[in-house]
Amino acid sequence: VSTDRCGDRTAILEGLAAYCRLADLNRPDEQTAVFLDDCRVSYGGPGRWIEGRTALTASLRRSLASYVATSHLLGGTEIAFSGADTATAETAVHAWHRRADGGPDVVLYGRYVDEWVRSPDGWRIAVREFRTAGATGRDETGLTPLGRQPVAEPATPY
Amino acid sequence: VSTDRCGDRTAILEGLAAYCRLADLNRPDEQTAVFLDDCRVSYGGPGRWIEGRTALTASLRRSLASYVATSHLLGGTEIAFSGADTATAETAVHAWHRRADGGPDVVLYGRYVDEWVRSPDGWRIAVREFRTAGATGRDETGLTPLGRQPVAEPATPY
Amino acid sequence: VSTDRCGDRTAILEGLAAYCRLADLNRPDEQTAVFLDDCRVSYGGPGRWIEGRTALTASLRRSLASYVATSHLLGGTEIAFSGADTATAETAVHAWHRRADGGPDVVLYGRYVDEWVRSPDGWRIAVREFRTAGATGRDETGLTPLGRQPVAEPATPY
Repeated sequence: VSTDRCGDRTAILEGLAAYCRLADLNRPDEQTAVFLDDCRVSYGGPGRWIEGRTALTASLRRSLASYVATSHLLGGTEIAFSGADTATAETAVHAWHRRADGGPDVVLYGRYVDEWVRSPDGWRIAVREFRTAGATGRDETGLTPLGRQPVAEPATPY
Repeated sequence: VSTDRCGDRTAILEGLAAYCRLADLNRPDEQTAVFLDDCRVSYGGPGRWIEGRTALTASLRRSLASYVATSHLLGGTEIAFSGADTATAETAVHAWHRRADGGPDVVLYGRYVDEWVRSPDGWRIAVREFRTAGATGRDETGLTPLGRQPVAEPATPY
Repeated sequence: VSTDRCGDRTAILEGLAAYCRLADLNRPDEQTAVFLDDCRVSYGGPGRWIEGRTALTASLRRSLASYVATSHLLGGTEIAFSGADTATAETAVHAWHRRADGGPDVVLYGRYVDEWVRSPDGWRIAVREFRTAGATGRDETGLTPLGRQPVAEPATPY
Protein backbone atom coordinates (compact mmCIF):
# COMPACT_ATOMS: atom_id res chain seq x y z
CA VAL A 1 0.00 0.00 0.00
CA SER A 2 1.46 3.34 -1.01
CA THR A 3 0.39 5.87 1.56
CA ASP A 4 1.80 9.13 0.31
CA ARG A 5 0.48 10.92 -2.80
CA CYS A 6 -2.15 12.69 -0.71
CA GLY A 7 -3.01 15.08 -3.53
CA ASP A 8 -3.71 12.27 -5.98
CA ARG A 9 -5.73 10.41 -3.39
CA THR A 10 -7.80 13.50 -2.63
CA ALA A 11 -8.52 14.04 -6.33
CA ILE A 12 -9.83 10.48 -6.64
CA LEU A 13 -11.88 10.66 -3.43
CA GLU A 14 -13.40 13.98 -4.53
CA GLY A 15 -14.30 12.48 -7.92
CA LEU A 16 -15.99 9.50 -6.27
CA ALA A 17 -18.02 11.79 -4.02
CA ALA A 18 -18.99 14.13 -6.85
CA TYR A 19 -20.33 11.20 -8.86
CA CYS A 20 -22.67 10.31 -5.97
CA ARG A 21 -23.78 13.88 -5.35
CA LEU A 22 -24.64 14.38 -9.01
CA ALA A 23 -26.47 11.04 -9.19
CA ASP A 24 -28.66 12.10 -6.27
CA LEU A 25 -29.28 15.47 -7.96
CA ASN A 26 -30.25 13.67 -11.21
CA ARG A 27 -27.60 15.46 -13.27
CA PRO A 28 -26.23 12.68 -15.46
CA ASP A 29 -24.38 15.02 -17.84
CA GLU A 30 -22.31 16.44 -15.00
CA GLN A 31 -22.10 13.08 -13.29
CA THR A 32 -20.19 11.52 -16.15
CA ALA A 33 -17.61 14.32 -16.26
CA VAL A 34 -15.54 12.16 -13.91
CA PHE A 35 -15.16 9.49 -16.64
CA LEU A 36 -12.87 9.35 -19.65
CA ASP A 37 -14.50 9.81 -23.04
CA ASP A 38 -13.72 6.21 -23.90
CA CYS A 39 -14.60 4.72 -20.51
CA ARG A 40 -16.07 1.26 -20.05
CA VAL A 41 -18.67 0.77 -17.34
CA SER A 42 -20.68 -2.19 -16.09
CA TYR A 43 -23.54 -1.66 -13.65
CA GLY A 44 -24.71 -5.23 -13.70
CA GLY A 45 -24.53 -8.48 -15.47
CA PRO A 46 -21.02 -9.83 -15.86
CA GLY A 47 -19.78 -9.03 -19.34
CA ARG A 48 -22.37 -6.34 -20.09
CA TRP A 49 -20.39 -3.16 -20.69
CA ILE A 50 -21.42 0.37 -21.57
CA GLU A 51 -18.84 1.81 -23.97
CA GLY A 52 -18.01 5.50 -23.85
CA ARG A 53 -19.20 8.50 -21.89
CA THR A 54 -22.01 9.42 -24.27
CA ALA A 55 -23.62 6.01 -23.90
CA LEU A 56 -22.99 6.10 -20.15
CA THR A 57 -24.76 9.43 -19.78
CA ALA A 58 -27.79 8.11 -21.68
CA SER A 59 -27.85 4.96 -19.57
CA LEU A 60 -27.63 6.85 -16.28
CA ARG A 61 -30.35 9.25 -17.43
CA ARG A 62 -32.70 6.34 -18.09
CA SER A 63 -31.86 4.67 -14.78
CA LEU A 64 -32.28 7.81 -12.70
CA ALA A 65 -35.64 8.50 -14.34
CA SER A 66 -36.99 5.35 -12.61
CA TYR A 67 -36.66 7.03 -9.22
CA VAL A 68 -37.96 10.13 -7.50
CA ALA A 69 -35.07 10.16 -5.03
CA THR A 70 -31.77 8.42 -4.44
CA SER A 71 -29.02 8.63 -1.84
CA HIS A 72 -25.60 7.11 -2.45
CA LEU A 73 -23.34 6.74 0.57
CA LEU A 74 -19.69 5.79 0.07
CA GLY A 75 -17.73 3.81 2.64
CA GLY A 76 -14.01 3.31 2.86
CA THR A 77 -11.93 3.51 -0.32
CA GLU A 78 -8.78 1.53 -1.03
CA ILE A 79 -6.52 3.13 -3.63
CA ALA A 80 -3.47 1.45 -5.18
CA PHE A 81 -1.27 3.37 -7.59
CA SER A 82 0.15 1.27 -10.40
CA GLY A 83 2.16 4.17 -11.84
CA ALA A 84 2.42 7.92 -11.84
CA ASP A 85 -0.83 8.30 -13.74
CA THR A 86 -2.82 5.13 -13.03
CA ALA A 87 -4.57 3.70 -10.01
CA THR A 88 -7.22 1.23 -8.96
CA ALA A 89 -9.80 2.19 -6.38
CA GLU A 90 -12.38 0.04 -4.61
CA THR A 91 -15.17 1.64 -2.63
CA ALA A 92 -18.15 0.22 -0.76
CA VAL A 93 -21.51 1.90 -1.31
CA HIS A 94 -25.03 1.72 0.13
CA ALA A 95 -27.45 3.26 -2.33
CA TRP A 96 -31.06 4.00 -1.37
CA HIS A 97 -33.62 4.49 -4.16
CA ARG A 98 -37.26 5.57 -4.01
CA ARG A 99 -39.11 4.26 -7.05
CA ALA A 100 -41.13 6.50 -9.31
CA ASP A 101 -43.71 3.69 -9.71
CA GLY A 102 -44.57 3.62 -6.02
CA GLY A 103 -42.97 0.23 -5.40
CA PRO A 104 -40.91 -0.50 -2.32
CA ASP A 105 -37.70 1.43 -1.74
CA VAL A 106 -34.60 -0.27 -3.13
CA VAL A 107 -31.31 -0.44 -1.26
CA LEU A 108 -28.27 -1.72 -3.10
CA TYR A 109 -25.34 -2.96 -1.03
CA GLY A 110 -22.42 -2.85 -3.42
CA ARG A 111 -18.92 -1.94 -4.37
CA TYR A 112 -17.36 0.16 -7.11
CA VAL A 113 -14.23 -1.43 -8.59
CA ASP A 114 -12.57 1.29 -10.63
CA GLU A 115 -9.54 1.98 -12.76
CA TRP A 116 -8.44 5.61 -12.72
CA VAL A 117 -6.18 7.46 -15.15
CA ARG A 118 -4.67 10.91 -14.87
CA SER A 119 -5.76 12.70 -18.04
CA PRO A 120 -4.78 16.22 -19.11
CA ASP A 121 -7.97 17.33 -17.31
CA GLY A 122 -7.18 15.49 -14.09
CA TRP A 123 -7.96 12.06 -12.66
CA ARG A 124 -10.77 10.26 -14.49
CA ILE A 125 -12.41 6.82 -14.32
CA ALA A 126 -11.37 4.62 -17.24
CA VAL A 127 -13.16 1.44 -16.15
CA ARG A 128 -15.87 0.93 -13.53
CA GLU A 129 -17.51 -2.32 -12.50
CA PHE A 130 -20.32 -2.27 -9.97
CA ARG A 131 -20.60 -5.47 -7.92
CA THR A 132 -23.38 -6.24 -5.48
CA ALA A 133 -23.41 -8.03 -2.15
CA GLY A 134 -27.19 -7.93 -2.14
CA ALA A 135 -30.26 -5.78 -2.44
CA THR A 136 -33.56 -5.18 -0.71
CA GLY A 137 -36.75 -4.08 -2.47
CA ARG A 138 -35.83 -5.67 -5.79
CA ASP A 139 -34.61 -9.00 -7.05
CA GLU A 140 -30.94 -9.39 -7.74
CA THR A 141 -31.29 -10.55 -11.33
CA GLY A 142 -28.91 -8.73 -13.61
CA LEU A 143 -26.52 -7.62 -10.91
CA THR A 144 -22.89 -8.67 -10.86
CA PRO A 145 -22.18 -10.55 -7.64
CA LEU A 146 -19.48 -9.38 -5.28
CA GLY A 147 -17.62 -12.67 -5.54
CA ARG A 148 -18.03 -13.77 -1.94
CA GLN A 149 -16.17 -16.96 -1.13
CA PRO A 150 -18.64 -19.79 -0.45
CA VAL A 151 -18.84 -20.99 3.11
CA ALA A 152 -16.87 -24.21 3.42
CA GLU A 153 -18.97 -27.23 4.27
CA PRO A 154 -18.42 -28.15 7.87
CA ALA A 155 -16.70 -31.48 8.30
CA THR A 156 -19.40 -34.01 9.05
CA PRO A 157 -18.77 -37.11 11.11
CA TYR A 158 -19.78 -40.41 9.53
CA VAL B 1 -10.62 21.05 -7.05
CA SER B 2 -7.67 21.87 -4.86
CA THR B 3 -6.16 18.61 -3.75
CA ASP B 4 -3.33 19.63 -1.50
CA ARG B 5 -3.86 21.14 1.96
CA CYS B 6 -4.09 17.70 3.50
CA GLY B 7 -3.83 19.07 7.03
CA ASP B 8 -6.75 21.44 6.55
CA ARG B 9 -8.79 18.69 4.93
CA THR B 10 -8.08 16.33 7.80
CA ALA B 11 -9.15 18.94 10.36
CA ILE B 12 -12.48 19.38 8.58
CA LEU B 13 -13.06 15.63 8.15
CA GLU B 14 -12.26 15.04 11.83
CA GLY B 15 -14.70 17.77 12.83
CA LEU B 16 -17.45 16.26 10.70
CA ALA B 17 -16.87 12.83 12.24
CA ALA B 18 -16.74 14.19 15.80
CA TYR B 19 -20.10 15.88 15.31
CA CYS B 20 -21.65 12.51 14.39
CA ARG B 21 -19.97 10.61 17.22
CA LEU B 22 -21.17 13.15 19.79
CA ALA B 23 -24.69 13.16 18.35
CA ASP B 24 -24.87 9.39 18.77
CA LEU B 25 -23.55 9.72 22.34
CA ASN B 26 -26.20 12.38 23.09
CA ARG B 27 -23.64 15.00 24.09
CA PRO B 28 -24.99 18.16 22.48
CA ASP B 29 -22.72 20.51 24.44
CA GLU B 30 -19.61 18.84 23.07
CA GLN B 31 -21.23 18.28 19.69
CA THR B 32 -21.57 21.99 19.02
CA ALA B 33 -17.92 22.71 19.85
CA VAL B 34 -17.27 22.26 16.12
CA PHE B 35 -19.39 25.35 15.35
CA LEU B 36 -18.57 29.03 15.59
CA ASP B 37 -20.27 30.96 18.37
CA ASP B 38 -22.26 32.90 15.81
CA CYS B 39 -23.04 29.99 13.51
CA ARG B 40 -26.23 29.68 11.49
CA VAL B 41 -27.77 26.24 11.09
CA SER B 42 -30.83 24.88 9.32
CA TYR B 43 -31.95 21.30 9.91
CA GLY B 44 -35.12 21.59 7.92
CA GLY B 45 -37.53 23.91 6.36
CA PRO B 46 -36.00 26.28 3.84
CA GLY B 47 -35.43 29.61 5.54
CA ARG B 48 -35.72 28.35 9.10
CA TRP B 49 -32.37 29.10 10.73
CA ILE B 50 -31.04 28.51 14.22
CA GLU B 51 -28.83 31.46 15.15
CA GLY B 52 -25.79 30.90 17.37
CA ARG B 53 -24.22 27.99 19.16
CA THR B 54 -26.22 28.40 22.35
CA ALA B 55 -29.51 28.08 20.50
CA LEU B 56 -28.09 25.23 18.43
CA THR B 57 -27.11 23.26 21.52
CA ALA B 58 -30.59 23.66 22.97
CA SER B 59 -32.18 22.60 19.69
CA LEU B 60 -29.99 19.51 19.36
CA ARG B 61 -30.66 18.56 22.98
CA ARG B 62 -34.40 18.63 22.33
CA SER B 63 -34.10 16.67 19.11
CA LEU B 64 -31.84 13.98 20.55
CA ALA B 65 -34.22 13.54 23.50
CA SER B 66 -36.81 12.16 21.04
CA TYR B 67 -34.66 9.09 20.46
CA VAL B 68 -33.15 6.28 22.49
CA ALA B 69 -30.45 5.63 19.90
CA THR B 70 -29.07 7.17 16.72
CA SER B 71 -26.31 6.30 14.27
CA HIS B 72 -24.99 8.86 11.80
CA LEU B 73 -22.87 7.52 8.95
CA LEU B 74 -20.98 9.97 6.73
CA GLY B 75 -20.22 9.23 3.09
CA GLY B 76 -17.83 11.03 0.78
CA THR B 77 -16.98 14.66 1.48
CA GLU B 78 -16.17 17.27 -1.15
CA ILE B 79 -14.14 20.20 0.17
CA ALA B 80 -13.42 23.38 -1.79
CA PHE B 81 -11.17 26.05 -0.30
CA SER B 82 -12.20 29.59 -1.14
CA GLY B 83 -9.22 31.11 0.67
CA ALA B 84 -6.58 30.38 3.27
CA ASP B 85 -9.15 30.28 6.07
CA THR B 86 -12.47 29.45 4.40
CA ALA B 87 -13.93 26.37 2.73
CA THR B 88 -17.18 24.77 1.74
CA ALA B 89 -17.78 21.09 2.44
CA GLU B 90 -20.59 18.83 1.28
CA THR B 91 -21.09 15.43 2.84
CA ALA B 92 -23.69 12.72 2.35
CA VAL B 93 -25.15 11.13 5.48
CA HIS B 94 -27.45 8.23 6.36
CA ALA B 95 -28.80 8.74 9.87
CA TRP B 96 -30.67 5.98 11.69
CA HIS B 97 -32.87 6.94 14.65
CA ARG B 98 -34.77 4.76 17.15
CA ARG B 99 -37.68 6.70 18.58
CA ALA B 100 -38.24 7.08 22.30
CA ASP B 101 -42.02 6.81 21.73
CA GLY B 102 -41.79 3.30 20.28
CA GLY B 103 -42.69 4.37 16.75
CA PRO B 104 -40.92 2.97 13.71
CA ASP B 105 -37.23 3.62 13.26
CA VAL B 106 -36.44 6.70 11.19
CA VAL B 107 -33.71 6.80 8.54
CA LEU B 108 -32.81 10.14 7.03
CA TYR B 109 -31.00 10.14 3.69
CA GLY B 110 -29.41 13.55 3.53
CA ARG B 111 -26.54 15.87 2.93
CA TYR B 112 -24.72 18.45 5.02
CA VAL B 113 -23.86 21.60 3.06
CA ASP B 114 -21.40 23.49 5.21
CA GLU B 115 -19.28 26.63 5.26
CA TRP B 116 -16.12 26.29 7.33
CA VAL B 117 -13.89 29.01 8.76
CA ARG B 118 -10.49 28.74 10.39
CA SER B 119 -10.89 30.43 13.76
CA PRO B 120 -8.16 30.99 16.36
CA ASP B 121 -9.28 27.64 17.84
CA GLY B 122 -9.13 25.78 14.54
CA TRP B 123 -11.57 24.98 11.74
CA ARG B 124 -15.21 25.54 12.71
CA ILE B 125 -18.58 25.38 10.93
CA ALA B 126 -19.99 28.85 10.27
CA VAL B 127 -23.08 27.80 8.30
CA ARG B 128 -24.71 24.38 7.98
CA GLU B 129 -27.75 23.46 5.93
CA PHE B 130 -29.13 19.94 6.10
CA ARG B 131 -30.89 18.83 2.92
CA THR B 132 -32.80 15.60 2.54
CA ALA B 133 -33.18 13.20 -0.37
CA GLY B 134 -35.84 11.30 1.55
CA ALA B 135 -36.71 9.55 4.76
CA THR B 136 -38.27 6.33 5.96
CA GLY B 137 -40.30 5.97 9.16
CA ARG B 138 -41.49 9.58 9.17
CA ASP B 139 -43.08 12.01 6.80
CA GLU B 140 -40.85 14.49 5.06
CA THR B 141 -42.72 17.59 6.12
CA GLY B 142 -40.41 20.25 7.41
CA LEU B 143 -37.30 18.92 5.71
CA THR B 144 -35.34 20.90 3.15
CA PRO B 145 -35.28 19.00 -0.12
CA LEU B 146 -31.99 18.09 -1.74
CA GLY B 147 -32.87 19.98 -4.91
CA ARG B 148 -32.99 17.00 -7.27
CA GLN B 149 -33.52 17.98 -10.88
CA PRO B 150 -36.98 16.84 -12.03
CA VAL B 151 -37.06 14.04 -14.56
CA ALA B 152 -37.68 15.46 -18.01
CA GLU B 153 -40.95 14.39 -19.57
CA PRO B 154 -40.28 11.74 -22.16
CA ALA B 155 -41.13 12.80 -25.69
CA THR B 156 -44.52 11.38 -26.52
CA PRO B 157 -45.56 10.42 -30.04
CA TYR B 158 -48.75 11.96 -31.36
CA VAL C 1 -6.26 16.86 16.83
CA SER C 2 -3.08 16.32 14.89
CA THR C 3 -3.84 16.92 11.27
CA ASP C 4 -0.59 16.18 9.51
CA ARG C 5 0.86 12.66 9.18
CA CYS C 6 -1.16 12.06 6.04
CA GLY C 7 0.76 8.90 5.19
CA ASP C 8 0.08 7.31 8.56
CA ARG C 9 -3.56 8.30 8.35
CA THR C 10 -3.89 6.79 4.91
CA ALA C 11 -2.34 3.52 6.06
CA ILE C 12 -4.88 3.27 8.89
CA LEU C 13 -7.83 4.20 6.66
CA GLU C 14 -6.75 1.66 4.05
CA GLY C 15 -6.49 -1.03 6.73
CA LEU C 16 -9.98 -0.25 8.02
CA ALA C 17 -11.40 -0.47 4.50
CA ALA C 18 -9.56 -3.70 3.68
CA TYR C 19 -11.00 -5.34 6.79
CA CYS C 20 -14.53 -4.57 5.56
CA ARG C 21 -13.86 -5.66 1.98
CA LEU C 22 -12.46 -9.00 3.15
CA ALA C 23 -15.32 -9.54 5.59
CA ASP C 24 -17.81 -9.09 2.75
CA LEU C 25 -15.76 -11.51 0.59
CA ASN C 26 -15.76 -14.08 3.44
CA ARG C 27 -11.97 -14.26 3.59
CA PRO C 28 -11.28 -14.30 7.33
CA ASP C 29 -7.65 -15.37 6.97
CA GLU C 30 -6.83 -12.30 4.90
CA GLN C 31 -9.18 -10.14 6.94
CA THR C 32 -7.18 -10.60 10.11
CA ALA C 33 -3.88 -9.65 8.44
CA VAL C 34 -4.61 -6.11 9.62
CA PHE C 35 -4.31 -7.22 13.27
CA LEU C 36 -1.26 -7.87 15.42
CA ASP C 37 -0.57 -11.50 16.27
CA ASP C 38 -1.34 -10.77 19.92
CA CYS C 39 -4.37 -8.56 19.30
CA ARG C 40 -7.36 -8.36 21.62
CA VAL C 41 -10.82 -7.98 20.07
CA SER C 42 -14.32 -7.70 21.47
CA TYR C 43 -17.31 -7.92 19.13
CA GLY C 44 -19.89 -7.88 21.86
CA GLY C 45 -20.49 -8.33 25.48
CA PRO C 46 -18.45 -6.00 27.68
CA GLY C 47 -15.47 -7.89 28.99
CA ARG C 48 -15.62 -10.73 26.45
CA TRP C 49 -12.33 -10.62 24.56
CA ILE C 50 -10.91 -12.75 21.79
CA GLU C 51 -7.17 -13.13 22.39
CA GLY C 52 -4.81 -13.37 19.43
CA ARG C 53 -5.13 -13.41 15.67
CA THR C 54 -5.55 -17.18 15.38
CA ALA C 55 -8.56 -17.17 17.67
CA LEU C 56 -9.89 -14.07 15.93
CA THR C 57 -9.72 -15.73 12.52
CA ALA C 58 -11.62 -18.76 13.80
CA SER C 59 -14.24 -16.54 15.42
CA LEU C 60 -14.76 -14.47 12.28
CA ARG C 61 -14.97 -17.61 10.14
CA ARG C 62 -17.78 -18.94 12.35
CA SER C 63 -19.62 -15.62 12.36
CA LEU C 64 -19.39 -15.10 8.60
CA ALA C 65 -20.68 -18.63 8.00
CA SER C 66 -24.04 -17.54 9.46
CA TYR C 67 -24.62 -15.27 6.48
CA VAL C 68 -24.88 -15.58 2.73
CA ALA C 69 -23.98 -11.93 2.20
CA THR C 70 -22.76 -8.94 4.19
CA SER C 71 -21.94 -5.32 3.40
CA HIS C 72 -19.93 -3.19 5.81
CA LEU C 73 -19.98 0.56 5.19
CA LEU C 74 -17.57 2.78 7.12
CA GLY C 75 -18.39 6.37 8.02
CA GLY C 76 -16.05 9.08 9.25
CA THR C 77 -12.91 8.08 11.12
CA GLU C 78 -11.28 10.07 13.91
CA ILE C 79 -7.59 9.29 14.39
CA ALA C 80 -5.48 10.54 17.29
CA PHE C 81 -1.77 9.79 17.39
CA SER C 82 -0.41 9.16 20.87
CA GLY C 83 3.16 8.76 19.63
CA ALA C 84 5.21 8.06 16.54
CA ASP C 85 3.98 4.47 16.36
CA THR C 86 0.65 4.43 18.19
CA ALA C 87 -2.80 5.81 17.49
CA THR C 88 -6.42 5.42 18.40
CA ALA C 89 -9.08 5.39 15.70
CA GLU C 90 -12.86 5.50 16.01
CA THR C 91 -15.05 4.73 13.03
CA ALA C 92 -18.80 4.48 12.59
CA VAL C 93 -20.12 1.50 10.62
CA HIS C 94 -23.44 0.30 9.22
CA ALA C 95 -23.23 -3.42 8.54
CA TRP C 96 -25.92 -5.25 6.57
CA HIS C 97 -26.16 -9.03 6.90
CA ARG C 98 -28.32 -11.55 5.03
CA ARG C 99 -28.81 -14.64 7.14
CA ALA C 100 -28.07 -18.11 5.88
CA ASP C 101 -31.11 -19.44 7.80
CA GLY C 102 -33.57 -17.30 5.85
CA GLY C 103 -34.38 -15.04 8.80
CA PRO C 104 -34.76 -11.30 8.41
CA ASP C 105 -31.79 -9.24 7.29
CA VAL C 106 -29.73 -7.83 10.14
CA VAL C 107 -28.35 -4.29 10.17
CA LEU C 108 -25.89 -3.35 12.88
CA TYR C 109 -25.41 0.35 13.63
CA GLY C 110 -22.10 0.47 15.41
CA ARG C 111 -18.67 1.86 15.97
CA TYR C 112 -15.16 0.41 15.93
CA VAL C 113 -12.98 1.74 18.74
CA ASP C 114 -9.44 0.71 17.86
CA GLU C 115 -5.87 0.99 19.06
CA TRP C 116 -3.31 0.90 16.25
CA VAL C 117 0.42 0.17 16.44
CA ARG C 118 3.08 0.55 13.79
CA SER C 119 4.71 -2.87 13.56
CA PRO C 120 7.69 -3.81 11.37
CA ASP C 121 5.06 -4.84 8.77
CA GLY C 122 3.14 -1.56 8.96
CA TRP C 123 0.19 -0.25 10.94
CA ARG C 124 -1.82 -2.99 12.65
CA ILE C 125 -4.79 -3.13 15.06
CA ALA C 126 -3.70 -4.06 18.56
CA VAL C 127 -7.10 -3.69 20.29
CA ARG C 128 -10.58 -3.45 18.76
CA GLU C 129 -13.86 -3.01 20.58
CA PHE C 130 -17.10 -3.03 18.62
CA ARG C 131 -19.86 -0.98 20.23
CA THR C 132 -23.45 -0.85 19.03
CA ALA C 133 -25.97 1.96 18.90
CA GLY C 134 -28.65 -0.52 17.89
CA ALA C 135 -29.65 -3.23 15.48
CA THR C 136 -32.58 -4.27 13.32
CA GLY C 137 -33.46 -7.87 12.48
CA ARG C 138 -31.98 -9.30 15.67
CA ASP C 139 -32.13 -8.65 19.37
CA GLU C 140 -29.33 -6.66 20.93
CA THR C 141 -28.41 -9.21 23.55
CA GLY C 142 -24.69 -9.75 23.73
CA LEU C 143 -23.75 -6.49 22.07
CA THR C 144 -21.65 -3.86 23.80
CA PRO C 145 -23.65 -0.63 23.98
CA LEU C 146 -22.29 2.56 22.51
CA GLY C 147 -22.45 4.35 25.87
CA ARG C 148 -25.05 6.95 24.91
CA GLN C 149 -25.68 9.49 27.64
CA PRO C 150 -29.20 9.02 29.07
CA VAL C 151 -31.68 11.75 28.31
CA ALA C 152 -32.11 13.98 31.34
CA GLU C 153 -35.55 13.87 32.86
CA PRO C 154 -37.48 16.94 31.87
CA ALA C 155 -38.36 19.17 34.78
CA THR C 156 -41.95 18.44 35.68
CA PRO C 157 -44.23 21.01 37.27
CA TYR C 158 -45.94 20.01 40.49
